[in-house]
Amino acid sequence: MITDHNVYKDLIQKNESKIVLLVMDGLGGLPLDTTGLTELESAYTPNLDRLAREGSCGRSIPVRPGITPGSGPAHLSLFSYDPVRFDIGRGVLEALGIGFELGPNDLAARGNFATVDADGLILDRRAGRISTEECVRLCEKLQANTSLEDEGYDVFVRPVKEHRFVLVIRGAGLGGELTETDPLVTGKPPLAVRDESGTPEGAHTAALVNKWIDQARAVLKDEPRANSLNLRGLAKDPGLPSFAAMYGMRAAAIAVYPMYKGVARLVGMEVIPFEGDRPHHEIAALARVWNDYDFFFIHIKKTDSYGEDGNFEAKVHEIEAVDAVVPDILALKPDVLIVTGDHSTPARLRSHSYHPVPTLFWGPNVMPDSVETFGERACERGALGIFHATEMVPWALGYSDRLARFGA
Amino acid sequence: MITDHNVYKDLIQKNESKIVLLVMDGLGGLPLDTTGLTELESAYTPNLDRLAREGSCGRSIPVRPGITPGSGPAHLSLFSYDPVRFDIGRGVLEALGIGFELGPNDLAARGNFATVDADGLILDRRAGRISTEECVRLCEKLQANTSLEDEGYDVFVRPVKEHRFVLVIRGAGLGGELTETDPLVTGKPPLAVRDESGTPEGAHTAALVNKWIDQARAVLKDEPRANSLNLRGLAKDPGLPSFAAMYGMRAAAIAVYPMYKGVARLVGMEVIPFEGDRPHHEIAALARVWNDYDFFFIHIKKTDSYGEDGNFEAKVHEIEAVDAVVPDILALKPDVLIVTGDHSTPARLRSHSYHPVPTLFWGPNVMPDSVETFGERACERGALGIFHATEMVPWALGYSDRLARFGA
Repeated sequence: MITDHNVYKDLIQKNESKIVLLVMDGLGGLPLDTTGLTELESAYTPNLDRLAREGSCGRSIPVRPGITPGSGPAHLSLFSYDPVRFDIGRGVLEALGIGFELGPNDLAARGNFATVDADGLILDRRAGRISTEECVRLCEKLQANTSLEDEGYDVFVRPVKEHRFVLVIRGAGLGGELTETDPLVTGKPPLAVRDESGTPEGAHTAALVNKWIDQARAVLKDEPRANSLNLRGLAKDPGLPSFAAMYGMRAAAIAVYPMYKGVARLVGMEVIPFEGDRPHHEIAALARVWNDYDFFFIHIKKTDSYGEDGNFEAKVHEIEAVDAVVPDILALKPDVLIVTGDHSTPARLRSHSYHPVPTLFWGPNVMPDSVETFGERACERGALGIFHATEMVPWALGYSDRLARFGA
Repeated sequence: MITDHNVYKDLIQKNESKIVLLVMDGLGGLPLDTTGLTELESAYTPNLDRLAREGSCGRSIPVRPGITPGSGPAHLSLFSYDPVRFDIGRGVLEALGIGFELGPNDLAARGNFATVDADGLILDRRAGRISTEECVRLCEKLQANTSLEDEGYDVFVRPVKEHRFVLVIRGAGLGGELTETDPLVTGKPPLAVRDESGTPEGAHTAALVNKWIDQARAVLKDEPRANSLNLRGLAKDPGLPSFAAMYGMRAAAIAVYPMYKGVARLVGMEVIPFEGDRPHHEIAALARVWNDYDFFFIHIKKTDSYGEDGNFEAKVHEIEAVDAVVPDILALKPDVLIVTGDHSTPARLRSHSYHPVPTLFWGPNVMPDSVETFGERACERGALGIFHATEMVPWALGYSDRLARFGA
C-alpha cells in the first residue's frame, strides 16, 4: 500500500525511541551465472543474517512495478513520500544531484546544451554530447557573462555531465508553472518559457528566465557545437511536508554524497557533518549525535557505485564492510533498525533496476519470521512480503510505539 | 498495486524485445479430494516447471479480492486496464462475447426477453428462461420485423443464450449516458430509456432506442412467454487508450474464440488469422508473425471450458498440451514469457472463481526465485507474491528494458 500521510498524522505520539534506517544504495542484485548467488547472497554477513533471523524480512518496490527509479525518487519513497504523488522537478533533483544547496527562494532548471542552425532550428538536442570538460568550460563562460543582477536576482550555472547543466535563479517572488523550451524534436526552434499557473509571479518568472536564455544564447552563439541551450523541469523546492511535521521525529541524515544530503534536506532532515567516507566513519557520526535525534538515515553509496561499474566482487566487499559495523549500531540500542536499499543495482546490469529490494526490520517488537539469512531469495519468504517502500517508515512507527490506536 | 497508466506513459522506450503473454483461460483450480492436487499440480508439465525454476512466480488477482471475473474484465486486467476503472458496458462485452465485430459508430445493449401481463407489468424478467433455440427464433423475428432505416441507422439483433440477446444500433451521432429499462423487480412496467448526460446526442440516442423498443415489443406481443424485453448496459466501445499508444508496442492477439479476439481488438491489438484450433496451431501462427510485433497475447480456451464442464482430467490434459508447445515458444527467444490465466475455473466448482491465478515470468532479466514447479501452492512462495493482474504488463516492460528511469 502506498502511504497516505493523512492516515498517520492524527495518530502520532512522541516517545524516546530511536529508529535507524540504514540504506545500502543499489543493494539488490541478480545472481552470478557461476554460483547462482547475488551480491548480497555471496557476501559474508553474519551480523545482517542475525538481524534477519531475529527480525522480519520482505522486499520493497521503490516506485511502481517494473519501474527503475533514479536516486531522488527512490529516497523520497524510503522517507514515505510517494514519488509519483510528490513530483519533484527535474531541475531540483539535478541540482541536488550535483550537491547544489537549494534554498527556498531558488528556482532550478535542468539545462541541455544544443546545436541550432543559422535559422535557429535545432540540429542536435544534445550538442553532439559534448564532453564534460567542454560542459565545464561553457558553464564557466555562462556564469561569467550572464546576469540578472539588474532585476535583483543571482544566477548560478553549474555543469553536470556531457551536455547537461543546472541553472539556478535565486531571489524573491519566483514561482508559477513553467513550460520547457525543448520542442523534443530537431528541425524546430526552441520554445519560449511560458507560465501556466496564471499567477503574477509565474508571468514574472517566465519573463525572467526568457531574459536569461536570450543572454545565454548570445554568449554561446559562436560556439561550434553548443551554440544554444534548452531548459527543462523548471521548478522550486516543492516544499514537501517535513518529516518532523508529519511524524513528530527529529531526523538526522548521515551521508557522504551530496545528492543524498540534498534529498534528506528536501524533507527537512538535518545533515550531520563528519570526517571520512567509510561506513565506520558514518557510524561514528551516528554515535556522536545519537542523543539529539529520533530518526537516523544512514546512506552507504559505494554498493551502488560498484554495481554500476559491473564490479560484483567490490559490491560484495562493500556489503561486508557494512555488515562489520552493524554491532556498533546495535550497541546504541536502537528500537527499530531497518536495513534496505533505495533500489537494486545488479552488477550484471551495470545500472539501477526495477527488481524489488531486500529489506529487514529488527527490534524488540518486530516479529521474528522464518527468514534465516539476509538475501534476495531469503527475503521472498519474509513476513513483510512484497511491499511499497513508502510503508517502511509507517512500520517503524508501529514497532517503536509512535502511533496511537486508530479508533475506539 | 493497480496499474495507473499515467505513471508509465512518459517512461516508455522502444526496443527490439519480444514479450509473450500466454493465457490458459481459467487456469487456476482446486484440489481433488483423492489426490490433494489441483489440475495444474496434477498435470505433467516439465517445460512449465523449468520456466518456474528459472523464473519468478506469483499469483494474480484479476479484479479485486473475492471477486469472480467474467472473461471480458479478466482479460482487460491482463492487458493492464483495471476493469473497475475502465468500465466497459455490458452490451459491449456481450457483443464481444458472441464475436460481433463492434465498430466506432455502434451502440450495443444486452437484451433480456421478458414476460409481461395484460397491463404491461413484468411477470418474469427472464421469460421463463426460454431455450437458446427459442432465443434464436425470436432474434430472427426481431431482425426481420424491426428497423431504424428511416432514421438512417442499421439494427442488429443477435442471440446469446436462453433469454439473453444483443442489440447493436449502428450509425453516426450515437452517445450519451443511457439508463436501463429493467426495473429489476416483477409487478412493475419496464422503464423508458433516458439519457443522463444532458447532451443532444444522448437525447437523440435515447429516443432512437425507445423507438426500436416500441417496435420490438409490438413484434413480440403475441408470443406466449417472451412477449416483451428489457435492455441493459447500453454503451458504445469505450475507446480505451490503445495498448500501442500507452506502451509503444505493436501487439498481436492469437486466439481461437471470438470473445478473446474481441477484447484484444478493444485495446487495439491486431488479431492474427490462422487455421486450426489447437495450441500447436496457435504457436505456428506466433512463429509466422514473430518479426512483425513486439507483444503477443496467446489465448488457450479449453482449460476453462473443461473446468466449466467439471472435467478435471480433460483440463489436466489440455494443460499438458500447452506444456508441450512451450519449447516452440522458447525457440523464438522471447525476452519475457508470462504464463498465466485470466482467472481460475476449478473443475470442482464448474465455474469461474475468485481464486488467485498461478503466474510465472521467465526471461534473462527475471530473478530466479525458489519456486521449482508451476502450480498453485508452488506459486505461493514465488518472488512476485500476490499481485493485481494489471501489474503483469508493467513487470514485463521492466524485464524487457522498455521503461526509462523514473527521475534523476
